[in-house]
Amino acid sequence: MTFQSVNYWKKLPLILLLLVNGAVFAESAQNPSKDNGWWDIPYPQQFDSAELTHKQSFIKVKGNHFVNDKGDTVVFQGVNISDPDKLLRDGHWNAKHFDVIKQWGANVVRIPVHPISWRGHGANEYMKLIDQAVIWANQRDLYLILDWHSIGNVIDGLYQHPMYDTTLSETKQFWRSIAYRYKNVPTIAVYEIFNEPTLYGGQLGDVSWKEWKAFNEEVISIIYAHDTNVIPAVAGFNWAYDLRPVKNEPIDAKGIAYIAHPYPQKTKPPYIDSWENTWGFVAKKYPLICSEIGFVREGEPGAHMPVINNDGSYGPIITDYLEKIGASWTAWVFDPDWGPMMIKDWNYTPTEQGAYFKSVMTKNKHR
Amino acid sequence: MTFQSVNYWKKLPLILLLLVNGAVFAESAQNPSKDNGWWDIPYPQQFDSAELTHKQSFIKVKGNHFVNDKGDTVVFQGVNISDPDKLLRDGHWNAKHFDVIKQWGANVVRIPVHPISWRGHGANEYMKLIDQAVIWANQRDLYLILDWHSIGNVIDGLYQHPMYDTTLSETKQFWRSIAYRYKNVPTIAVYEIFNEPTLYGGQLGDVSWKEWKAFNEEVISIIYAHDTNVIPAVAGFNWAYDLRPVKNEPIDAKGIAYIAHPYPQKTKPPYIDSWENTWGFVAKKYPLICSEIGFVREGEPGAHMPVINNDGSYGPIITDYLEKIGASWTAWVFDPDWGPMMIKDWNYTPTEQGAYFKSVMTKNKHR
Amino acid sequence: MTFQSVNYWKKLPLILLLLVNGAVFAESAQNPSKDNGWWDIPYPQQFDSAELTHKQSFIKVKGNHFVNDKGDTVVFQGVNISDPDKLLRDGHWNAKHFDVIKQWGANVVRIPVHPISWRGHGANEYMKLIDQAVIWANQRDLYLILDWHSIGNVIDGLYQHPMYDTTLSETKQFWRSIAYRYKNVPTIAVYEIFNEPTLYGGQLGDVSWKEWKAFNEEVISIIYAHDTNVIPAVAGFNWAYDLRPVKNEPIDAKGIAYIAHPYPQKTKPPYIDSWENTWGFVAKKYPLICSEIGFVREGEPGAHMPVINNDGSYGPIITDYLEKIGASWTAWVFDPDWGPMMIKDWNYTPTEQGAYFKSVMTKNKHR
Repeated sequence: MTFQSVNYWKKLPLILLLLVNGAVFAESAQNPSKDNGWWDIPYPQQFDSAELTHKQSFIKVKGNHFVNDKGDTVVFQGVNISDPDKLLRDGHWNAKHFDVIKQWGANVVRIPVHPISWRGHGANEYMKLIDQAVIWANQRDLYLILDWHSIGNVIDGLYQHPMYDTTLSETKQFWRSIAYRYKNVPTIAVYEIFNEPTLYGGQLGDVSWKEWKAFNEEVISIIYAHDTNVIPAVAGFNWAYDLRPVKNEPIDAKGIAYIAHPYPQKTKPPYIDSWENTWGFVAKKYPLICSEIGFVREGEPGAHMPVINNDGSYGPIITDYLEKIGASWTAWVFDPDWGPMMIKDWNYTPTEQGAYFKSVMTKNKHR
Repeated sequence: MTFQSVNYWKKLPLILLLLVNGAVFAESAQNPSKDNGWWDIPYPQQFDSAELTHKQSFIKVKGNHFVNDKGDTVVFQGVNISDPDKLLRDGHWNAKHFDVIKQWGANVVRIPVHPISWRGHGANEYMKLIDQAVIWANQRDLYLILDWHSIGNVIDGLYQHPMYDTTLSETKQFWRSIAYRYKNVPTIAVYEIFNEPTLYGGQLGDVSWKEWKAFNEEVISIIYAHDTNVIPAVAGFNWAYDLRPVKNEPIDAKGIAYIAHPYPQKTKPPYIDSWENTWGFVAKKYPLICSEIGFVREGEPGAHMPVINNDGSYGPIITDYLEKIGASWTAWVFDPDWGPMMIKDWNYTPTEQGAYFKSVMTKNKHR
Repeated sequence: MTFQSVNYWKKLPLILLLLVNGAVFAESAQNPSKDNGWWDIPYPQQFDSAELTHKQSFIKVKGNHFVNDKGDTVVFQGVNISDPDKLLRDGHWNAKHFDVIKQWGANVVRIPVHPISWRGHGANEYMKLIDQAVIWANQRDLYLILDWHSIGNVIDGLYQHPMYDTTLSETKQFWRSIAYRYKNVPTIAVYEIFNEPTLYGGQLGDVSWKEWKAFNEEVISIIYAHDTNVIPAVAGFNWAYDLRPVKNEPIDAKGIAYIAHPYPQKTKPPYIDSWENTWGFVAKKYPLICSEIGFVREGEPGAHMPVINNDGSYGPIITDYLEKIGASWTAWVFDPDWGPMMIKDWNYTPTEQGAYFKSVMTKNKHR
């Protein structure tokens, strides 16, 4: 990449700000002042739970399921929204978005926080977006799953795409910031530590389950050092499909859930045996959330490996199976541009999968 | 953090170099020239010891104490200044500051280099500030302790505040740069490797003493590969309070010192037994420096956990105890804005603790 | 973080992409658009091998030597060019440069990619330069060795000079990008993983061969996960001079080569015994490339430790020895500014070593 002119540099103080903390040094010699030095950067603040108008239970793990304050079993069924930054750009980061989701019958919304988006806004600004989600969700008695939406190998620092680039340190710092901020907030029930760990057939290096387990256990310990009223959730390799190591080497932590993303092309129909052996068995012992499920016909917008299912049969098979094993789920994705889409447009016209998942959520809501 | 004016940046070419190496690429196509390519970035230079007008001993470790060239025992008693960048902004980065400290009876000044400040200026520019400190201190026969002033968990990359953010690599590179630059300078007697390691009750992750020990040993080996005429100093966990692991697993390196920061609220009065068991015992075998001590009454400026002591009794108890065990100390902090303050204003009016530590230093200076 | 004006951003997309991923956030609120979000950053593309007009064999390892498609032994003899960015600035990044190298009798060109240069251009832009080198080399039936030209300790993140600064993650990502891009390209025969590992007498920390071996093995596994038709090459410590650990602890990977940089001052004349014991022995079992050899008389341009040889005797001794053990080589460096130079000026006037290596390559070319 070649710069066409150096003059732009003179005009671009803000770039620099973005880049390094050291920004405040610019003024040191010319404008001596002790009032806005780097030592006065404010410490983070906790979310003011007085802003929550609706009483919600802190959700807890009991055996292999979630319970509310009364001890009732809670099964989450809902949707993924797109990254709040994406909705902000679209002009749809608003209460109405949560209204529609509630009307569709969801009781939970998963928020995928992309590392590139987190850094782009900066932690403090991004958390203001999450604050809004908390308020909008709480007003509608929805719960939230907060998801650090990276894909790749965080141990070695190799990722599938720049939007997923992060580091071990940034990931731990993210959870530290979040766990501190939302300590007293029942609305965010689940912290999904790392969206989709994958080695991409070796293209992203090599990591053992032992290393992956240790990483998750340290993040969980950081979360619990701030807040024990939240449920950390752990995914397995192969883009959150493979939880087999949990059989012999479960994560050494209490009160957690496991995550699977069983898109249709991760195995062949009739699915069930493979699902059971690869991740479904976990639900016998631990709470399980399929935090991404979804499908679309080939040639339709948003179709890509591994979400293609040409006869729509995947929908009922997955939701019936998850109901049978008592697992929670959130469909991917309540957005008209990201695939597989649940809505066709900003009139919220359902796609095929959108209509299907809406019908399941609506039915369950009223029984 | 917001810039009010972009003009300062025009004066700050070094910031750009600091921020991205790639800056020099700006001109590549339009202004082909081999004379200022990235391959011509100058290698670092050593401090010119001819600038030192006063003959000072290289201080060495002998048993559990420091000695000068003649073999006389040296006990350091002095003050912490604030970060040179802070003094620069205040318009007080000058010889007078060192004059006053000398007049108060100090024989040593500890300089806390905050990582955010080091990066903000860039290594080369920051070392010019340290160069000045070396010259001012040498002229007054003061010694310096150079302190990499981070707080947190450098192994996992989690810190208490953005001003303390650093990395393992930056920390090692800092000591490499410093050890190279000041190899022939007796004035800087002590390199304090990492100010205050802390896990913050697990909020900053988890590190074993074994890992912490190995980190310090590698930094010491990097320092010694450049310069063996300097004393590396190692702190323990709990914000440099807890040196108990030194009993069974001391740092495997010769010629080093240990560090403790026994602020009043780290334990309860009458203090001594806890101090003895937690860090004081180290002084029987190794040189010990309490490189931060200090106190202030509740409600006074600068009061915060753990420095509050409401009857002023901490002052004589700590200095008497340190005298008894032969430990060195530097009080925190010779600045009217950072707490607990030793001075009230830029007339150098002593605070309560300032007056107390001044009286001790002055007395010891004349005996 | 608050932007005072978004207008500058519109003019500078490339800078921003280079500097921080987050750049695209600048316009989010003011200019809502889903068409150029961070989620649309294009995935990397492979080199279009249809651009290769000349049929070249994929070079493979067979026993201790290289072979072409017919099974003929291939010995590489050629030159190092300077970094493509340097040639671009000089106005000499062109086909003529490769013409002259071909005329000198070379069959291979080593391209040193300096991390500072890679980052400065950005991966995508830099790979366009490598694309050009591939086309120019292919047209002339030259092979390429691609070299990640860092010097230092990549495990600890300490380097000899800012131009060599990189990280473990960036190094792995570099090889991932390269291995993906050039999968179908026979022209780049060798991937030299890390130019010159060195601990600089401890100034750059401490790394065991075991750690160094594991690092190389992981990079090789990343390369092979993309492309098994390429030869990864591994250097030893002491600036790629010391391969003795290969005797008992060889790199655990098939199809690789080893690298040595036996400049004249790495040992004393008559050289051969030391060379044999330190790196030459490797050639009995594995393919060996001396990817940097070269010399210059003291006082001549480019003279510096360890390349000085005052009687020119080094030239024939090294090339005869390498011919005897069947090792490949590339002389450093086909540039009039970097030392030791092979050319005096942009008329390509040979220096003493330039004339010597030219004569050897020309002779071997015709036999």
